[in-house]
Amino acid sequence: MTMRIERDSIGEMRVDQNAYYGIQTLRAAENFPITGRALHPEFIRSLAAIKRAAAITNYSAGLLTTRQCTAICAACDEILAGELREWFITDPIQGGAGTSANMNANEVICNRAIELLGGARGDYAVLHPNDHINMGQSTNDVIPTAGRVTAIVLLGRLIGSLASLCRALADKELEFDDIVKVGRTQLQDAVPIRLGQEFGAWRCAIERDMARLRAVSDELAVVNMGGTAIGTSLNASSFYVSHIVGSLAELTGLPLRQASNLIDATQNLDAFVAASAAVKNCAVNLSKMCNDLRLLSSGPRTGIGEITLPARQNGSSIMPGKVNPVIPEVVSQIAFGVIGNDCAITLAAEAGQLELNAFEPILFYKLFESIETLANGVASLDHNCLRGVTANRERCGALLEGSVSVVTVLCPRLGYQKSAAIAKEALRTGRPVRALLLEQTPLTAEEIDRLLDPRGMTMGHAG
Amino acid sequence: MTMRIERDSIGEMRVDQNAYYGIQTLRAAENFPITGRALHPEFIRSLAAIKRAAAITNYSAGLLTTRQCTAICAACDEILAGELREWFITDPIQGGAGTSANMNANEVICNRAIELLGGARGDYAVLHPNDHINMGQSTNDVIPTAGRVTAIVLLGRLIGSLASLCRALADKELEFDDIVKVGRTQLQDAVPIRLGQEFGAWRCAIERDMARLRAVSDELAVVNMGGTAIGTSLNASSFYVSHIVGSLAELTGLPLRQASNLIDATQNLDAFVAASAAVKNCAVNLSKMCNDLRLLSSGPRTGIGEITLPARQNGSSIMPGKVNPVIPEVVSQIAFGVIGNDCAITLAAEAGQLELNAFEPILFYKLFESIETLANGVASLDHNCLRGVTANRERCGALLEGSVSVVTVLCPRLGYQKSAAIAKEALRTGRPVRALLLEQTPLTAEEIDRLLDPRGMTMGHAG
Amino acid sequence: MTMRIERDSIGEMRVDQNAYYGIQTLRAAENFPITGRALHPEFIRSLAAIKRAAAITNYSAGLLTTRQCTAICAACDEILAGELREWFITDPIQGGAGTSANMNANEVICNRAIELLGGARGDYAVLHPNDHINMGQSTNDVIPTAGRVTAIVLLGRLIGSLASLCRALADKELEFDDIVKVGRTQLQDAVPIRLGQEFGAWRCAIERDMARLRAVSDELAVVNMGGTAIGTSLNASSFYVSHIVGSLAELTGLPLRQASNLIDATQNLDAFVAASAAVKNCAVNLSKMCNDLRLLSSGPRTGIGEITLPARQNGSSIMPGKVNPVIPEVVSQIAFGVIGNDCAITLAAEAGQLELNAFEPILFYKLFESIETLANGVASLDHNCLRGVTANRERCGALLEGSVSVVTVLCPRLGYQKSAAIAKEALRTGRPVRALLLEQTPLTAEEIDRLLDPRGMTMGHAG
Amino acid sequence: MTMRIERDSIGEMRVDQNAYYGIQTLRAAENFPITGRALHPEFIRSLAAIKRAAAITNYSAGLLTTRQCTAICAACDEILAGELREWFITDPIQGGAGTSANMNANEVICNRAIELLGGARGDYAVLHPNDHINMGQSTNDVIPTAGRVTAIVLLGRLIGSLASLCRALADKELEFDDIVKVGRTQLQDAVPIRLGQEFGAWRCAIERDMARLRAVSDELAVVNMGGTAIGTSLNASSFYVSHIVGSLAELTGLPLRQASNLIDATQNLDAFVAASAAVKNCAVNLSKMCNDLRLLSSGPRTGIGEITLPARQNGSSIMPGKVNPVIPEVVSQIAFGVIGNDCAITLAAEAGQLELNAFEPILFYKLFESIETLANGVASLDHNCLRGVTANRERCGALLEGSVSVVTVLCPRLGYQKSAAIAKEALRTGRPVRALLLEQTPLTAEEIDRLLDPRGMTMGHAG
Repeated sequence: MTMRIERDSIGEMRVDQNAYYGIQTLRAAENFPITGRALHPEFIRSLAAIKRAAAITNYSAGLLTTRQCTAICAACDEILAGELREWFITDPIQGGAGTSANMNANEVICNRAIELLGGARGDYAVLHPNDHINMGQSTNDVIPTAGRVTAIVLLGRLIGSLASLCRALADKELEFDDIVKVGRTQLQDAVPIRLGQEFGAWRCAIERDMARLRAVSDELAVVNMGGTAIGTSLNASSFYVSHIVGSLAELTGLPLRQASNLIDATQNLDAFVAASAAVKNCAVNLSKMCNDLRLLSSGPRTGIGEITLPARQNGSSIMPGKVNPVIPEVVSQIAFGVIGNDCAITLAAEAGQLELNAFEPILFYKLFESIETLANGVASLDHNCLRGVTANRERCGALLEGSVSVVTVLCPRLGYQKSAAIAKEALRTGRPVRALLLEQTPLTAEEIDRLLDPRGMTMGHAG
Repeated sequence: MTMRIERDSIGEMRVDQNAYYGIQTLRAAENFPITGRALHPEFIRSLAAIKRAAAITNYSAGLLTTRQCTAICAACDEILAGELREWFITDPIQGGAGTSANMNANEVICNRAIELLGGARGDYAVLHPNDHINMGQSTNDVIPTAGRVTAIVLLGRLIGSLASLCRALADKELEFDDIVKVGRTQLQDAVPIRLGQEFGAWRCAIERDMARLRAVSDELAVVNMGGTAIGTSLNASSFYVSHIVGSLAELTGLPLRQASNLIDATQNLDAFVAASAAVKNCAVNLSKMCNDLRLLSSGPRTGIGEITLPARQNGSSIMPGKVNPVIPEVVSQIAFGVIGNDCAITLAAEAGQLELNAFEPILFYKLFESIETLANGVASLDHNCLRGVTANRERCGALLEGSVSVVTVLCPRLGYQKSAAIAKEALRTGRPVRALLLEQTPLTAEEIDRLLDPRGMTMGHAG
Repeated sequence: MTMRIERDSIGEMRVDQNAYYGIQTLRAAENFPITGRALHPEFIRSLAAIKRAAAITNYSAGLLTTRQCTAICAACDEILAGELREWFITDPIQGGAGTSANMNANEVICNRAIELLGGARGDYAVLHPNDHINMGQSTNDVIPTAGRVTAIVLLGRLIGSLASLCRALADKELEFDDIVKVGRTQLQDAVPIRLGQEFGAWRCAIERDMARLRAVSDELAVVNMGGTAIGTSLNASSFYVSHIVGSLAELTGLPLRQASNLIDATQNLDAFVAASAAVKNCAVNLSKMCNDLRLLSSGPRTGIGEITLPARQNGSSIMPGKVNPVIPEVVSQIAFGVIGNDCAITLAAEAGQLELNAFEPILFYKLFESIETLANGVASLDHNCLRGVTANRERCGALLEGSVSVVTVLCPRLGYQKSAAIAKEALRTGRPVRALLLEQTPLTAEEIDRLLDPRGMTMGHAG
Repeated sequence: MTMRIERDSIGEMRVDQNAYYGIQTLRAAENFPITGRALHPEFIRSLAAIKRAAAITNYSAGLLTTRQCTAICAACDEILAGELREWFITDPIQGGAGTSANMNANEVICNRAIELLGGARGDYAVLHPNDHINMGQSTNDVIPTAGRVTAIVLLGRLIGSLASLCRALADKELEFDDIVKVGRTQLQDAVPIRLGQEFGAWRCAIERDMARLRAVSDELAVVNMGGTAIGTSLNASSFYVSHIVGSLAELTGLPLRQASNLIDATQNLDAFVAASAAVKNCAVNLSKMCNDLRLLSSGPRTGIGEITLPARQNGSSIMPGKVNPVIPEVVSQIAFGVIGNDCAITLAAEAGQLELNAFEPILFYKLFESIETLANGVASLDHNCLRGVTANRERCGALLEGSVSVVTVLCPRLGYQKSAAIAKEALRTGRPVRALLLEQTPLTAEEIDRLLDPRGMTMGHAG
C-alpha cells in the first residue's frame, strides 16, 4: 500500500495514498473503535448537503472561487448520490461532539475536490479541509444540523409507514364492524364491543402519534447553521450567516429555519429529546396494540382465539404445527429498544455543559436507530400481519353468549346491587342471565330481549 | 368505636359509624397498604368536580331529583373547599385501574349527601354510591378524566413557576450583557461570549419548554367522560353523554373537550406519556442550566469562579466557611427523579390491555410527583438562587485575558494551520498571542487590536 | 410563639423557642420545599444510631466528658425510640449531599442534650452541634452510612416478605402438583405442564432474588464512617477512626465493616446502584409472575380461567359482579415504579464529581421507596391473593383435551414433518389427534395411549 | 440464480440453490428486516457449539449414526472457525423467541452436513434440520443457552479490559502519590488530597465492578439445555438430558451447570438482567471517573488544569490548537448507551409470559452491545488516555496554596464557629489564613505550620 504523509497539530501520520480521508479521520478511527459500525448513510448525505450549501453560500459571498466551489459541489454530489461512503470510517459513537465526523466529511470532500481540480490527494495547498470545506462552519453547527436533517428524513419514512398502517387498520375497522364480541378490562369479561371498534381505537391512537411526529419534525427544522463554534457566528461572514440556512433548505427541500438564538441552539438538544419522546410514545401505542393482537389471537385452542393472524413462519423448532405471533412480538421488542434509547438520549441531552453538548454522537446513534427500526417494524406489521388478520366470527359469538357482564345494562333498571346478585348467581350456577331475569325481576321477555341485545350495547351516544 | 355493618358482593364488613367512606373503600385500604400516603389533594378535588358535574347533568336529564342533586352537589362543594379529605383513605398506588379511588369518592359523597338529606351514614336506600353518585359513569372514564384535570392544574402551576424564572433570567441577561468572558466547549477554553448571552441561552430553552407544556396541557384537555366502562357509553343517557364534558368544563374553568373516539380515549394513555415527556424535557434543560451554574460558580478559589451564587446555608458540617450550590443541586436531583418517573410512566402506558389500561394509578402518582416537585424546585431556584447571582467581573476579565482560543478569529486571515501553530506556541511558552502575531505575521498592531477585540467576537451577524 | 435568635456564617434567624432544631435546619426547610414529606423514619433512626456510636467512641477517646456523652446518648435514645421525629423537618430531596439532614440531627440531638444538661435550647455554649454532636464526622461519612444502614434494615423486611411468599408458593406447588394442563409459549398452546410446576418456577425465581438481595445487603455493610469530609479522616482521632464502625455495628446489630479505601467509599455510590438493581430484578420476576396470574385467571367465562384468584373487592363501579385481579395489578404497578426509580438512582450515582457525590438524597429517597413499596406489595400478594388461589381442575382438563400440541411427542417417532401435518389436519378439521394417528400412522392404540399420556409428558428426565 | 424449492407447514418457497440456509431462514429474513445487521458472530459460534455438543450427546445416546454425527460436527467446526457466517441472515431483532436464529443454525449446519455426506443442499431426506440437528433441543433451551454462553465470553473480554485499566490506574496512583492538591466536594474547594489518592479511588471502584462482573458470569453459567420446549425435557432422551450440559461445558471450556429447575430456567431471564445491571454499574463508575478526568484537565488556561490528558486529535474544526478530552467523552457516551440498554433489557425480561419469554432477541442484542462497546471504550480509555495522563504539579501547588478550606483542620482546636469566621475573613479580604491565625488566635507559628501542613491532612488514620 502506497502511503502519503499528513500532518496536523498533534504530529504526522502515514495515510493510504488512495484514501480520500486524511489524518484527522485516521486519528479518530484509532481513538474510537467502539461499535465497528458506520455512520448512518443518511447522516453522511446530510453532511454532504450542508457542505455543498456552505460552499455555494461562501461562493456567493465572494469567499470561494468558481473553481473551488464547483469542485467542492461535485464532490458533495457524488456523496449525495451514494458514492465515496467507504471513506467515512469514523465510528458513530465518538468523543468530541462529532468533530471527527465533520472532519471526515471535510477531508473526503476536500481530497475528492482536489482530485477533480487535478491535484493529488493530501495536497491541501490546493484546497484545505478546514479553511475551505469547513469555511464559515464549526462542528458545533454542522453536526447538530446534520442530526436534525437526518432525523427529519427518517421521521418522514416512519410517518409514511404509519400512514399505510392506519389505512390497513381502517380497512379492518370496516371489515369487522358487524362482529359483536366481549370487551375485556383487566383481562376480565366486560361489556360488549364490536371487533371493528377495537381496530378503530388502535387507529386513532396511531393517528395521534403521527400528529406528534409531524410536530417534532417541525421543531427539528430549526437549525443553528451560521452559529459556528458557540453560536456567536465568529468567523462566518455576515452574508453567509444570513443565507446559509435558506441555501440548505432549498438544497434539501426541507422547511429549515435558522434559530433565533444561535447560542441556545448550539448548546441545547431538547428538540431531539422531544423527537425521541414522540417516537417512544408511538412505540408504546404500537406495543399495546401488538399485545392486544397477541391476546386476541391466543390459542388456537386454549386461548381467546377471536382473531387469527396470518401464519408467517413455523413457530417452533420442536413443536410441529405451532404458529406464533412473531410479527407483533418483534414490534414490541423494537418498542423496548426505543424506550431504552429514549433513556440514553435523555442522559446525553442532560450532560451538556456550557456552550456545547459534546454527547451528540450517542444521541444521534440511538435516535436514528429508534426511528429506523420502528419504521421497519411498522412496515412488517402492516404487510406481514395486519392486512391478513381474519376474524373468527363463531368464536366471538360463542364467547359473547357465555359471558354474564351484559348484566351491566340492567343497572339503571334494577340497581347495581340486584344486578350484581344476578351476575353472581349466573356465574355460580351456570344458568343463563335471561332465565334468572325472568324468574327474579318484573322484566318481560321482550324487555329483556331489547335490553340484552349486545349490538345495541356497542352503539354509544356520542358520535 | 361504634360500628355499622355494610355489605357488598364479596360479603359484609364493620365500618366505623362516623366514617363517610364505606365498605368498598375499606376493602381497598386493606388490599393496598403500599405507600402509606394519601391521594393527591388536587386529584380528590378533580373527583369531586366530576361527581358534581355528573350530578347536575343527570339532574338535567331528569334522572336525579332536585333533592338528590342538591345534596350531592353540597357534598362535592365541601370536598372542593378542602373538607372531608381525611376520609379519602385509599393508597395512590392501587390495583384495579382506580376503582377504589372512584368508589372512595362515591362513598364519601354519598354518605355526606345522605347525612345532608337527614339519613344515617351507610343507609344506601336513601342514596346509593353506584346508582346515584356514579350514575352515567364508570371508573374507566372518571379516573382518566380526573387524572387529566389534575395534571392540567398542576402543569399550570409549573408553567407559572417557569414564567417567573424566565423573567429572572431575562433580568440577569440584561444585567450581565456587558461582561465578556471565555466561552467553553467540552470544558476546554473556547471563543469569547458575554455572560448575559449565557443567561439568555438558558432562558430561550426554558421558553421552549413552556410552549411544550402548554401544548400537552391542551392535549390532556381531551377527556373520555361519557364513555363509561369501555367507551361505548353503555348506561349513560344520551343527554348526559352530550352534556357531561361541557358541564365539567364550565365547573373547572378548563377548556375540556370530549374525545371523538371514546373507546380509544378509554384505553390509551399516550397523552400522559406526552405530558411526562414534556416535563422531563424541561427537567433536562433545567438540570443542564444548574450544572452550568455550578461550574461557573465553582471555587471560590480553585475553580472557575466567574459568578457567585447567593449563600443560602452552611455548606458543610465539618468544613467551616464552605458554601455549596445547594439549590442547583436540588434541581438536578429533582430532574433525576423526573427522568426515572418518565420511565415508570412509559411502562404503565405500555401495559394497557384491550379495552382498558389498569395501571393508571402508578402513572398518575409518578406524573403528579414529577410536575409538583419540579414546580417547587423551579420556585426555589428562582427565588433562592437565580435572582441573587452576582458576576465576578474581574475574574471573567482575567481568565479571558489569559486564554489563547481567541486565535480562532485569525483563521480567515492566516489559515487554520498557521493559527494553530501560534496557539500551540502561546500555550507552550506562555507568551501572549499578540506578541507572537506581531513577530510571525504581517498583521499590524492596529489590525491585531481590531481582530482580537473580544467583545467584537461575541456580536454575531444573525440578529 | 416565643422565638430565640440563632446565628451562623450566613447571618441570624429567629427560631421557635420550643424547637429542638436550630438555624441550619430552618434554612434548609426554606431552601427545599420540594416533596412536603418527611425523612424516612428508619433513616432518622440510623442517624441517631450513628450519632450515639460517635459519642461513645469520642468519649472513649477522651474527647467528650462523661456528662456530655451521657446527654448525647440519652437524646439519641429518645430518637431511636421514635420520639422527637416532628423536629426533623428537612425535605428528603435536598441539595448539599445531605448536610441539611445531618445538621438537623446534630441540632435536634444537641438541643435535647442541652436541655437534659439543664441548659436552654439554642445555648450552644453548653454543647455544640458541630463541635460535639458531629465530632469526628462529616456529612460525607454520616449520610452515606445512614443510607446504607437504612437500606439494610429495609432490605431485611423485603427479604422477610419474600420468604413468606415463597412458602405460600411452595404450598401451592404441592397442592397443584397433580393438575396437568396446557403449557403456553408466546400465548400459543404448547406441550403439557403441571400447574404445580408453574408455581414452582415462580418460587425458584424469587429464591434467586432473595439470594441477590442478601448479597447486596452484605455489600452495603461496608461503610465509610471515619473518613470525614473526603475519606482522608481529617479531624477524626486515630482511636475514633479505628473504633467507630465496630461501635456502630454493635449498636445496630448489623455486620458493618469499614471500607478499606475511605476515599473511594466516600465518593462512589455503586453499592446502592447494585442494591437498586437487585430490587428491580426481584420486581421484574414478581411482575412477570403477576402477569401470569392475571392470564391464568382471565375470564371468568371468556378467558383462560384455569385458576381463580380470591375475590378481594368489587371490580367495577359500573359492571356488577365483576371481580378484578387487583392484587397482581398493584404489584406490577409497584414494579414499574421500582424500574423507574432504578433509572433515577443510576443517574444520581453517575452524577458524582471528584471527592463526593452530592446527589445522595434523591438516590436514598427513591431506593427506600422502591424497597418499601415492594415489600408492602409482596405482603399483600402473599396474604391477599396467593394463599387463596384455587385451581379449576375441570377447565384445565378440558382445555388440555382440546389442544393439539401434544403431537410434539410424536416427532421422535414420526419426524417433524409428518407430525406437523397431523397437527395441521387436527386443527383444520377439528378431528382428534388420536383418530388421525390411528388412520395415518403405523402406531397402535396402545402406543398412542402411552405416547399421548399428558402427565408423562411433564415428568422430565433431569431431576 | 438457480433455485431449489423447499417446503414447510406454511407452503413452499424458492431458495437460492447455493444457499446453506433453507426455507425457514428465508421466511424469517422476509419477516424481520429490522436492523439490517447480522447476528453477533460470537452468538453464531455459541449456536454452533451447542449443536455440536448436542450431536455428540445424541450420538452417545445411540440416536445418531457415526456418519451423521461426524458430518454435523464437521459443519459446526467450520462455523466455529468463522466460516459460513454469510448464511446467517436473520436479523438480531426477530419475533419468535429466537426460533429463526435457531432454525438458521439448524438449516446451515444441516445443508453443509448433507453436502459433506455427498447429498444436495435442500435434500432433507439425508439429514433433517429439525429431526437431526435440533434433536433433543428446542429454540427455548438453545437460544437462552447461546445467549448465556455469548454473554460469558464477552464479559470475559470486558473483565480483561478492566484489569488492564486497573493496572494503569495503579501505576498512576503510585506516580502521583506525592502530589498534594485541593480536594473538591460539590465543585467547591475542600480539604487537601493527594492526586494519587484520586486515581486510587477510581481503581477501587473498578475493582468492585470486576468482582460483580465475575459474579454475574457465574450466574449466567447455569443453563437450561435439556429442558426442550418448556423445561419438561419432552422429546429429549434421558441420557441426553443428563449429559448435554457437561458436553457443552467441555467443548466451550466454560464452567456451565444445568439449572436445577429447568422450567424456571426456560421462562425467567433475571440472570441477564443481573448481568446488565453489573455492566451498567461499571459504566456508571467509569463515566464518573471520566467526568472527573475532564474536570481536572479542564482549561488549559481557564479551568482547573491540574492534569493534562494526552492529545489524541485536533479538538475542533474551527478553533485551532484546541484539544478536547475526546476519550473520556466517548466513554461517558457509551455509558449512556449502556444505561438505556439496561432499561430495554429490563422491559424485555418483564414481558415474559407463562412458559417462555419471547423477547430474548432484543435483550441479547442490547446486552451484547452494552458489554462490547464498554469493553472497547475501556480499552481506548486505557491505551489512548489514562496511560498518558500527566500531572501539572505547579498548578496543583498554586491552587492549594490559595485555598482556605484548610481551616477545617483548626476546628478541633478553635471550634467550628471561630474557624468559620477566619475562613470567611480570608475569603473576603484575600489575606492568608496563616496571618489571620497569628493575629486572632493563641496559636504559635510552629503550631500553625504543623497544623496547616497539607500533606499531613491527607494521611488518614484508618490504614
